[in-house]
Amino acid sequence: MNTLEHLIPDIPCPDTEARSQARERWDSLVKPRGSLGRLEDLAVQIAGITGELDPSLERKTIALFAGDHGVVEQGVSKYPKSVTASMIRTFVANGAGINILAEQAQTEVRVINMGVDTEDVPAEILDRSIRKGTDNFMIGPAMTRQEAFRSLETGYKFAEILYAQGINLLGVGDMGIGNTTASSAITACLTESSVGQVTDKGTGLSAEQISHKSQVIEQALRVNRPDPQDPLDVLSKVGGFEIGAIAGCLIGGAAHRIPLLLDGFITSAGALTAAALVPEIRPFLIAAHISGEKGHRVALNHLGLTPLLDLEMRLGEGSGAALAMPVVETSVRLLNDMATFKEAGISGGE
Amino acid sequence: MNTLEHLIPDIPCPDTEARSQARERWDSLVKPRGSLGRLEDLAVQIAGITGELDPSLERKTIALFAGDHGVVEQGVSKYPKSVTASMIRTFVANGAGINILAEQAQTEVRVINMGVDTEDVPAEILDRSIRKGTDNFMIGPAMTRQEAFRSLETGYKFAEILYAQGINLLGVGDMGIGNTTASSAITACLTESSVGQVTDKGTGLSAEQISHKSQVIEQALRVNRPDPQDPLDVLSKVGGFEIGAIAGCLIGGAAHRIPLLLDGFITSAGALTAAALVPEIRPFLIAAHISGEKGHRVALNHLGLTPLLDLEMRLGEGSGAALAMPVVETSVRLLNDMATFKEAGISGGE
Repeated sequence: MNTLEHLIPDIPCPDTEARSQARERWDSLVKPRGSLGRLEDLAVQIAGITGELDPSLERKTIALFAGDHGVVEQGVSKYPKSVTASMIRTFVANGAGINILAEQAQTEVRVINMGVDTEDVPAEILDRSIRKGTDNFMIGPAMTRQEAFRSLETGYKFAEILYAQGINLLGVGDMGIGNTTASSAITACLTESSVGQVTDKGTGLSAEQISHKSQVIEQALRVNRPDPQDPLDVLSKVGGFEIGAIAGCLIGGAAHRIPLLLDGFITSAGALTAAALVPEIRPFLIAAHISGEKGHRVALNHLGLTPLLDLEMRLGEGSGAALAMPVVETSVRLLNDMATFKEAGISGGE
Repeated sequence: MNTLEHLIPDIPCPDTEARSQARERWDSLVKPRGSLGRLEDLAVQIAGITGELDPSLERKTIALFAGDHGVVEQGVSKYPKSVTASMIRTFVANGAGINILAEQAQTEVRVINMGVDTEDVPAEILDRSIRKGTDNFMIGPAMTRQEAFRSLETGYKFAEILYAQGINLLGVGDMGIGNTTASSAITACLTESSVGQVTDKGTGLSAEQISHKSQVIEQALRVNRPDPQDPLDVLSKVGGFEIGAIAGCLIGGAAHRIPLLLDGFITSAGALTAAALVPEIRPFLIAAHISGEKGHRVALNHLGLTPLLDLEMRLGEGSGAALAMPVVETSVRLLNDMATFKEAGISGGE
């Protein structure tokens, strides 16, 4: 039972009929053709994903997966590992950026502990810890193949729970000191980019520190030799528990036709992993924003995604996904609630 | 009394103390320094405008100024002039794009008739009509200097009304078939750009039609010889009543320290006019988005503004301003509601 093939579901195709109907309706609405730009494409995508022109998007969630990274001992982050644990407590205390953004977007946030190095996991957090942080992947695999599988499976099952609860718009987020390092390693492997092209300042490294981080990743790739044709191998060797869970959650969300909002660089590494396993999930993905982290652009290009927002954010936590949720909802409301040329008594719209 | 000097108020300086306090607070919050990107700059700007770190922004309005354009008889638009009148009725009937966007952003919309060619102005619209549309500026001035002054003054006084009513976040919008032609002419004059650099498809012209539109504007500039050193001359010769009102409204809003959201190309032509008259208003302006209309970029560059959103919208009506309002509010909530490193028990944030 515990095989990848068993986990990977049939992903539905986007509903082309609903997409056409949405496109047609846009052109009947009281505005110059195409003048709502990306909002038009977005509502068409949502129609394709859900099979409906006017799906409910009211039950929103940010699924925020947290985990620690052994590679932090190589000095790849500006912050100590303990900050991951502090931050999950801050999420529960409603003091983090994502809490405020979520409140503004009227979405809930669910925090899932995938492997934070702490004994003290607040009761409000869903505890699915695989282990208290990955191993230092500069000197060996981050985790076993079995653990990588479990991280995927945990994310997948969480998406099934959300689906069962009626969640109809899902953003993913991450917390984990050191996880831009893992994301750079994954992105380099799965997009066949050089480490230098996808490694950046994370929480705020200097140029010198970025160079060190790149060397750590280069070394990790030499030591572990992850196989780009085997996404689970990549995830186990240079990934993270929260990144595996993000990948699994995206696969599970797509299986249930839930529109999926990516956040920043770490979630895009999860999406690369997911799409390498199950390419059919791509039409279900929406890139909420582009972060300042340069590997993010590489990952989104590889996924064929154009980000909605560019506000130079690089916080993670699902922050960009939360900020873009109202944009998604607004696009659907425009499609459905605007008057047609006919209703407005204007002839010859085109 | 009826002179420009009398209309132009003292514009306050942005509060540099409040700006510094905001910047300092951002750096104390539980996130990597600068990781909220443009949202940080935005809340700093709002602090400078209002003099407060946590101003109320709850009383929001989109001021949507409408007017007709005589130059439409030259075939510069895809739509007949009568669409302006149809659209203001659609605004009242809640069927236009801006109505839906405003509802999502929880802002009201106020429509001001500055000169629509109709006998039938709905009672819900504030009727400040100067005349039923400008004259065809390809063959002579769009309006008299006195009318240009009145359009400015009307917008200015409307901002004073909004201020008296407690409005604390103001977006401007436009409706007027033909008004990208006027905006291109204004932008060419006030930014000293060529007509070709600032003339684009408006409601959806073909390349050939854009070329014709450019020729009409070239001819208008030859015939009228607007003086770029005299913004009122430019407005009267190649402007529009709604564009003058937008300019006046921005000046009035800045005078009362109200954060001002521009929308698309037409509102940027209004902002160019306003800033040419009163350069001190610039720190009060926020560019909500960049439209597909190429003159918009030229205008924003001239104003030194970087747009928040780029969703390839080109609808006008205040649509981009409405979409960006929640982003502005969110930036202020983040600044004020996030926990500090100290509160989160994390030492050595920097």
